Amino acid sequence: MSLEKVSSNKAFGGQLVKYKFKSETLGGLNANFNLYLPPSATTSKVPILTYLSGLTCTEDNGAQKGGFLGPAAQEGIAILFPDTSPRGAGIEGEDDDWDFGTGAGFYLNATNPKFAKHYNMFTHVTVELPAVLAAAALPIDFTRQSIFGHSMGGHGALTLYLNSLYHGAKQYRSVSAFAPISNPINCPWGQKAFTGYLQGGIEEAKEKYDATELIKKLKSPVNILVDYGTADNFYIQGQLLPENFLKAARDAGYDEVQVRVRSQEGYDHSYYFISTFGADHIHFHSNFLKA
Amino acid sequence: MSLEKVSSNKAFGGQLVKYKFKSETLGGLNANFNLYLPPSATTSKVPILTYLSGLTCTEDNGAQKGGFLGPAAQEGIAILFPDTSPRGAGIEGEDDDWDFGTGAGFYLNATNPKFAKHYNMFTHVTVELPAVLAAAALPIDFTRQSIFGHSMGGHGALTLYLNSLYHGAKQYRSVSAFAPISNPINCPWGQKAFTGYLQGGIEEAKEKYDATELIKKLKSPVNILVDYGTADNFYIQGQLLPENFLKAARDAGYDEVQVRVRSQEGYDHSYYFISTFGADHIHFHSNFLKA
Repeated sequence: MSLEKVSSNKAFGGQLVKYKFKSETLGGLNANFNLYLPPSATTSKVPILTYLSGLTCTEDNGAQKGGFLGPAAQEGIAILFPDTSPRGAGIEGEDDDWDFGTGAGFYLNATNPKFAKHYNMFTHVTVELPAVLAAAALPIDFTRQSIFGHSMGGHGALTLYLNSLYHGAKQYRSVSAFAPISNPINCPWGQKAFTGYLQGGIEEAKEKYDATELIKKLKSPVNILVDYGTADNFYIQGQLLPENFLKAARDAGYDEVQVRVRSQEGYDHSYYFISTFGADHIHFHSNFLKA
Repeated sequence: MSLEKVSSNKAFGGQLVKYKFKSETLGGLNANFNLYLPPSATTSKVPILTYLSGLTCTEDNGAQKGGFLGPAAQEGIAILFPDTSPRGAGIEGEDDDWDFGTGAGFYLNATNPKFAKHYNMFTHVTVELPAVLAAAALPIDFTRQSIFGHSMGGHGALTLYLNSLYHGAKQYRSVSAFAPISNPINCPWGQKAFTGYLQGGIEEAKEKYDATELIKKLKSPVNILVDYGTADNFYIQGQLLPENFLKAARDAGYDEVQVRVRSQEGYDHSYYFISTFGADHIHFHSNFLKA
């Protein structure tokens, strides 16, 4: 699992470094990620915020377009940008669609034998990447982790966070999402992904990979922020369903302080939307990461 | 010259709109540009800052990665993002190299007959785009214009600004540049472009399209800010030559207030560098645009 540095760019006084390594959880394929270390990481360990990107994206989109690095530099927070799927697994059909296979790993562990060797982004993000960073002795305080993401990555962020709480692991202190796929068992993107990747299909997903289902059965306190835009075509088409998540959260007794879901008038699904609220999300996480 | 709206994205309370139109100065080809209007443009006319992008870029790079929109929204400034060359002129060889032809218009008016019909980015940016925006009755105060750019676009920004002053037109109140090609007659990129586009080659360029030569003969007051990174490979390779520009400016009697050239330790040529200092450049221009 030794890391190879691919490139390095100074940004806002810190460093954005792209690494690659041979990933065991992704079946031995090379995996890329970006890691932003703020200026303060040169003198002390810093908290880490993981950003999960959406369909078709790589480890670069959030780093280049999210507007996260400036606020992270100010707050003294590292940001980890994983890729969105394994690359080059060579599975038949994995490159046919933009919403399934390559670039669309859905942050789950596949149980369909066809995908199970490579499509394990859940473990890649929650276990393997922290282990790889720790082994490389990077200046990160892993007791202070939070997670956020966009669209498919918003789904990933919410489900990784909620699963961790559900299993008592409390890996992440807070979660936020831009336009997340909030109830994937009830939308076309999610149904396609789950029936493809999971042997148990939708039923298996309902237990593990649906934020709306997960929050229904949770008892622990949560720190959740969600933003979505009213002009987001995928929202309008019913791929995101943030209202379902919000209703489930309220029904489960979570109030506005613990679960904030904000409808942003006129914003769409793009990184122009994300960058508008990027600093806000960094500051939200900072409250918990630095508490 | 009627404008067609291609797309629209809300960002930081304002709107980024991509337009296309049939460009006379580019030989009747379709030309794209992005225009960001800040929230304040809904109630009054706003100043306009033009951003010229670098080699291989389009009208999108600065809008997506520059980190300009948030500060522009705050300051109440519009930003115009032109493309970097005509597209689809069909001239033999124009798509062979990344540093000449398509994506590499160098913000000049070609005099080589092979390119003269289409490669007129100088007039496209300084005359045609303002005329097109004015004809569309967009809420812009054209008495308040400034210009900035990156690399080839930094060359463009400096030379359009200096030419305007030299001819007494004062179209732009201030100019800034990230890693500009500052003395193109003395670097490979510039020499290749000028010998290709201009019938008079380097000699013709020396009169019109070289920032270092232009500042030598200027007498009027100027407002110029330049940033470049010491880890910029193109700087190291001698493509940028900001020291030549700085020396010429000082020899011509311009002090640190009128011509500020800042060496930024460890930064490279990428948008990570640009976005780090993007807000700073917007604020620099704001001083003059809102004076």
